[in-house]
Amino acid sequence: MFQKRTDLALEARELWQESAERTSRLSGVKATKTKLEGYPLTRVDILNRKGEEALGKPQGSYLTIDLTTFWQRRTDFFERAVRAVGSQLKALVPAEGPVLIVGLGNAAMTPDAVGPLAADSVLITRHLVSSMPRQFSGFRPVAVFRAGVLGTTGVESAEAVRGLVAQVRPALVIAIDALASRRCERVCATVQLSDTGIIPGSGVGNHRSALNQETLGVPVLAIGVPTVVDAATLAADLLEESGLPEVDEERLRGSGQNLMVTPRDIDQQVRDLAKVIGFGINWALQELEIEEINALLS
Amino acid sequence: MFQKRTDLALEARELWQESAERTSRLSGVKATKTKLEGYPLTRVDILNRKGEEALGKPQGSYLTIDLTTFWQRRTDFFERAVRAVGSQLKALVPAEGPVLIVGLGNAAMTPDAVGPLAADSVLITRHLVSSMPRQFSGFRPVAVFRAGVLGTTGVESAEAVRGLVAQVRPALVIAIDALASRRCERVCATVQLSDTGIIPGSGVGNHRSALNQETLGVPVLAIGVPTVVDAATLAADLLEESGLPEVDEERLRGSGQNLMVTPRDIDQQVRDLAKVIGFGINWALQELEIEEINALLS
Amino acid sequence: MFQKRTDLALEARELWQESAERTSRLSGVKATKTKLEGYPLTRVDILNRKGEEALGKPQGSYLTIDLTTFWQRRTDFFERAVRAVGSQLKALVPAEGPVLIVGLGNAAMTPDAVGPLAADSVLITRHLVSSMPRQFSGFRPVAVFRAGVLGTTGVESAEAVRGLVAQVRPALVIAIDALASRRCERVCATVQLSDTGIIPGSGVGNHRSALNQETLGVPVLAIGVPTVVDAATLAADLLEESGLPEVDEERLRGSGQNLMVTPRDIDQQVRDLAKVIGFGINWALQELEIEEINALLS
Amino acid sequence: MFQKRTDLALEARELWQESAERTSRLSGVKATKTKLEGYPLTRVDILNRKGEEALGKPQGSYLTIDLTTFWQRRTDFFERAVRAVGSQLKALVPAEGPVLIVGLGNAAMTPDAVGPLAADSVLITRHLVSSMPRQFSGFRPVAVFRAGVLGTTGVESAEAVRGLVAQVRPALVIAIDALASRRCERVCATVQLSDTGIIPGSGVGNHRSALNQETLGVPVLAIGVPTVVDAATLAADLLEESGLPEVDEERLRGSGQNLMVTPRDIDQQVRDLAKVIGFGINWALQELEIEEINALLS
Repeated sequence: MFQKRTDLALEARELWQESAERTSRLSGVKATKTKLEGYPLTRVDILNRKGEEALGKPQGSYLTIDLTTFWQRRTDFFERAVRAVGSQLKALVPAEGPVLIVGLGNAAMTPDAVGPLAADSVLITRHLVSSMPRQFSGFRPVAVFRAGVLGTTGVESAEAVRGLVAQVRPALVIAIDALASRRCERVCATVQLSDTGIIPGSGVGNHRSALNQETLGVPVLAIGVPTVVDAATLAADLLEESGLPEVDEERLRGSGQNLMVTPRDIDQQVRDLAKVIGFGINWALQELEIEEINALLS
Repeated sequence: MFQKRTDLALEARELWQESAERTSRLSGVKATKTKLEGYPLTRVDILNRKGEEALGKPQGSYLTIDLTTFWQRRTDFFERAVRAVGSQLKALVPAEGPVLIVGLGNAAMTPDAVGPLAADSVLITRHLVSSMPRQFSGFRPVAVFRAGVLGTTGVESAEAVRGLVAQVRPALVIAIDALASRRCERVCATVQLSDTGIIPGSGVGNHRSALNQETLGVPVLAIGVPTVVDAATLAADLLEESGLPEVDEERLRGSGQNLMVTPRDIDQQVRDLAKVIGFGINWALQELEIEEINALLS
Repeated sequence: MFQKRTDLALEARELWQESAERTSRLSGVKATKTKLEGYPLTRVDILNRKGEEALGKPQGSYLTIDLTTFWQRRTDFFERAVRAVGSQLKALVPAEGPVLIVGLGNAAMTPDAVGPLAADSVLITRHLVSSMPRQFSGFRPVAVFRAGVLGTTGVESAEAVRGLVAQVRPALVIAIDALASRRCERVCATVQLSDTGIIPGSGVGNHRSALNQETLGVPVLAIGVPTVVDAATLAADLLEESGLPEVDEERLRGSGQNLMVTPRDIDQQVRDLAKVIGFGINWALQELEIEEINALLS
Repeated sequence: MFQKRTDLALEARELWQESAERTSRLSGVKATKTKLEGYPLTRVDILNRKGEEALGKPQGSYLTIDLTTFWQRRTDFFERAVRAVGSQLKALVPAEGPVLIVGLGNAAMTPDAVGPLAADSVLITRHLVSSMPRQFSGFRPVAVFRAGVLGTTGVESAEAVRGLVAQVRPALVIAIDALASRRCERVCATVQLSDTGIIPGSGVGNHRSALNQETLGVPVLAIGVPTVVDAATLAADLLEESGLPEVDEERLRGSGQNLMVTPRDIDQQVRDLAKVIGFGINWALQELEIEEINALLS
C-alpha cells in the first residue's frame, strides 16, 4: 500500500486509526486534548514498544499546538502563541544550566528555513554571561548553532552538533526543524514539541543522523513545524476520499516525485512561525516578558 | 465543471482536446512541433476569434521550448538553452531601437521571482549608449524595470510600466513573468514566448492589468516560465486519470485553496532558468557570444 | 583650496563661517536652534540669492534633527525619534492628496541603502484606498517607488520618477536618500528634511538629475541621512586642525580616491534610521500611533 | 606614540623600518620579492624571537600577493589570480588527507564577509567521498565551516572549530578572514597567506582566540584579505607625511573611533576576491582546472 508521509505523531496516530478502520484499539499510545491560550493542544504519549511500532516513532511525549487561528490575527494572537509554545517548553526544560539551540535546515530554501530563522530570534547570552557574569547574572547561558545542510558543509548536522556539545557542555539541546505533514490544513499551522530528539529521515531536508540523548549525551528537545505536504500523499488522500482505495503507488510517486505542496505565502508564514518559536524559547529559558524580549532583540 | 488552471497555450490546447474527447477538430488554432538546439519546440498559433474562444487566449503566436533535458546537464546544455531562447526571441524583435525589459513578480517569493532574477542577468546599456555613444556604438540601448508587486508599491505593474514607457520610448517591451502550468512535468522545464503581451489574471502573483500593445502603445513580447501547479488542478488531473470524471470543484478548491505545488529545489531551478532567459535576451539583442556576455556581466 | 564635501545645509553654513574666519556676517541665511522630543533641531533657512551662493544650495528650509543620543537607547528613544521626524514632516505636507515615496539609492550597498530600506517601513495604501474606498476611508493613498541605480536600470531616477508621477498624480513626492557629511560625528546620527527637493550631484551614489518641483511638477520633500564621510574631507579636516592650512588637494584626493569612511556597525545603524524615517512618514501621513503602525506592518 | 594598526606582516615590517628611520637592520626577518602570474609577490619570513618582537607576529612565513592590477581586468586576470593564490597554497598543503575550510567573520557585514563568501566558492566533497568513495576517488575530502560571530552564536570561533576538528579530524585547517591594512592602496588589493594560523585580536571583527596548531592540534593555514583601514591610522599617516611627527593619539582615536575606511564599491570587490580565494583553494586541493571548477560549482 501507499505509504503516506508525515512527521507528526498526531497524524501517525490518525493514519493508524484509518488503516485499522477504526475497529481495533491502539495500545501503548495515549492521546489527550486540551486548550492552551486559546489554541487547541493535543498530547500523544507513546508508552511502550507496541506504541512505537504502531506509530513508527520512538517512546516519548509529543505535544502539538494547533495555531490555525493564529492567521486570523485576533487579539494578542502573537503573545498567546508565544506563551503557548513557551509554557510547554518550560515544562520540558531542566531548571538550570546552559542550553544549545540548533537551527536545522537550509536557510536558502524557504520551506526548510524555519530552524535557522527561529535561531535568529533567540537571545544569545552565553558569551555575555561568561564575560560579564555579574551584570548578566539573571540570564541563563544560551548559544546557537545554525547547522547548514550536508551540501554546503560536507558535515552531517549530528556530527557537527556532537563536536559543539563537547565544547559548550549544555544541559539541554533544543533542535528546531521543518517537518512534512500529511494534511494541508496543518502546514504552517502547527508546532510539535517532543522530548525524543529528532529522528533520522524526517523533515523537509535530509538530515540523516539522529540528534538525541543517545547520540549527543544530553537531553534533546525537538521543535518541529510542518511546512510542506508531500505531493503524492496529498493525491493519495484525495483519491481515497473519492472512494478509490486502490491506489497505484508507482503512479502517484511518479507524478509527485520531488514535488512539494506549500502555501502561496510560505515566506511570510515561515518567518512569523519562526519568530513565535524563537520568542517562545526566550520566554521559557530567560523568564522574560514579550516586551522585554522585543527590547533586547531590537 | 472544474476549471483547470494553466497559463500555457500548449496546455490550453490539450485541455480543449480532452474536453472535446478528441473527436472534433479545433479550428482557428495551428500547432507545429520541431526541435531547436536539441530541445523540443512547440508553436501554437491562434489565428482568429474562434481560436481565441477555444483556448481562452488572445490571437498570436505562442512558442514553447521544452527544457526538460536541461536538468540532465548534458554537453553544452546551458549554451544550447540560451541559443534556443535567444534565436526565437530574435525572430520576434524589431531590427533596432531601444528595448525595455520588465521583470514582473515578487523577488522575495521564489516561485514568483523568475522575472526580477532574469532582469539581473540582462546587460543594461541604455545609460552607456547615451553618455558614451561612440564607445558603445555596437550596443542596442537596453533598460530594465523591476516592477515589484501591488502590496509593496501600491501601483499596478501596468501603470508603472506605462509611465516608464512614456519616458524611455522603447521600440519594444519584453515582459518576463512566472506562470502556472497544469502539468507537474512542465514546471521549471518550459519557457513560453509570445507576441501577445501578458494577459490579466495570469501568473503566479496577481498582476491584474494587461501589458500589451493596446495598453502600452508599443509591441510587448512576453516570456513566461511555469513555476507552480495549482494544487486543485493537480488533484483534478489525478482523479480523472483514476476514472472519476465527476469532480466536486468545491471540495477540490477547499483542499487546495492557497496551496501551490513546486519542485523541492525550486530556488536553484528558478535561478538557473532566469539566467538562461537573461542570457537569451542579451544574445538576441546585443548579438554577443555567451563568453562575451559572461565577461561583461562578471 | 580643497573643496570639502557635505550634503548638509548645516555644515555648508559651518564651512562658510570657517572660510570667512568668523568675521563677516552671512546674509541671506537664517539659522535657529531648538529641541524636539529631546533631540536638538537646527533650522537653516536660505532666504535669497545671496544665501544660495554662500551655501551652494537652493533657497528653502533645511531642518536637521540630531539623533546622536538615539544610540544610547534611553527611554522611548525610538518613539521620540519617530515623533520628531514625523512632526517636522507634518508641517511640510499638504493636508490631503496622494503621496509618492521615492527610495533613492542602491539597496545592495549598505551606505546607499537608507532610501530603499525606509521604503520598506512605509505603509502602502494607494491600492487599498482605491479598491476598497469605504473600508480604507481613513487612510491617505501612499505609493512607493524604489528607484534603483543607473547601473542596474539604465534609467535616471529622475526620469523614472517623472514617468510614475504622470500616472500616480501625487500631491507630494517624498524622496529619501543617503548623504555625505563632513563630520564623522554626524554620520548615522542626523536626519535632514528640506522642502527643496534633491539636488543633482549629491548623495552617496550618483543620482545625477534633480528631483524637485521644477522637474516633477509637484512639490518634493527631501529626507536625507548622512551615512559616509568622504575620506579626503576627513583628512583635510584633521590636517587643518593640526595647524596646516595649506593642503595639497591632489595628494588628499589621491589617498582618498574612491574611499569612504563609515561606522563599523553601519548595517545596523542604517536599518534602524531607515525604520525611524519610514515610521515618521506613516506617523505624519496616516496620523497613526506607533503601536498602530507596528501592528499594520507586522 | 600612536600605534598604527595592520594585520599584514609586510606592513609591520614597513612600520618597523619607518620607526627605525631606515638606519638599523632588522634581524630575524627575511624578505624577498618576486612575480607570480604577473602579480608581485612578497615573502616575509620571521625567523626567530627577535623577528617576532620586531614585527609583533609569530614566527613563520607570510606571503603577500599584490592584486592591484586585478581591477584593471586585463587578459586572464581572474585565472592568473586563482593560479597565483592556488600555487602558493599548494606549496603549504600536505599531500593528502581531509581539509577543513573555516570562513571567519560576519556574512552580514560586507568588510567582514570575505571568509563566509570564499567558503561559498569551495567545492564541498567530504560527504560525497565518504558516501560514494569509488565515484569520488579522485577528490580530496573537503568540509566547510562558517563560524559566524560571537554576537550571533554565543560561541568563540576557536571553540566551535575545535569541536568540529575533533569530529572531522582534518589533516589541515584553512582559515579565511578579513584583515585591516595600514595603507588604503592595499585594501581589497592584497591576499596574505601564512602558515602561522590566525592570531587573536586581528581582523576586522573581533575573533578573540587563536586558531593555530597549538589550539587546534592540526596545522592551520591562514588566508587574509585586508578590507578596511582603521580611520585613525589613515589620519596618522597623512599627518606624518605632512611633516607633523608629533601626533596626539587621543585626538586621532577620538575622531576615528569606530570608524573604518573602505572602498566605495566594497561589495563587488569583496565578492570578487572571495571567489579568487575559493577557486584558489579548489585549484590547490583538487587539482582541477578553472573551467572544471566552474562547471562543478554551477
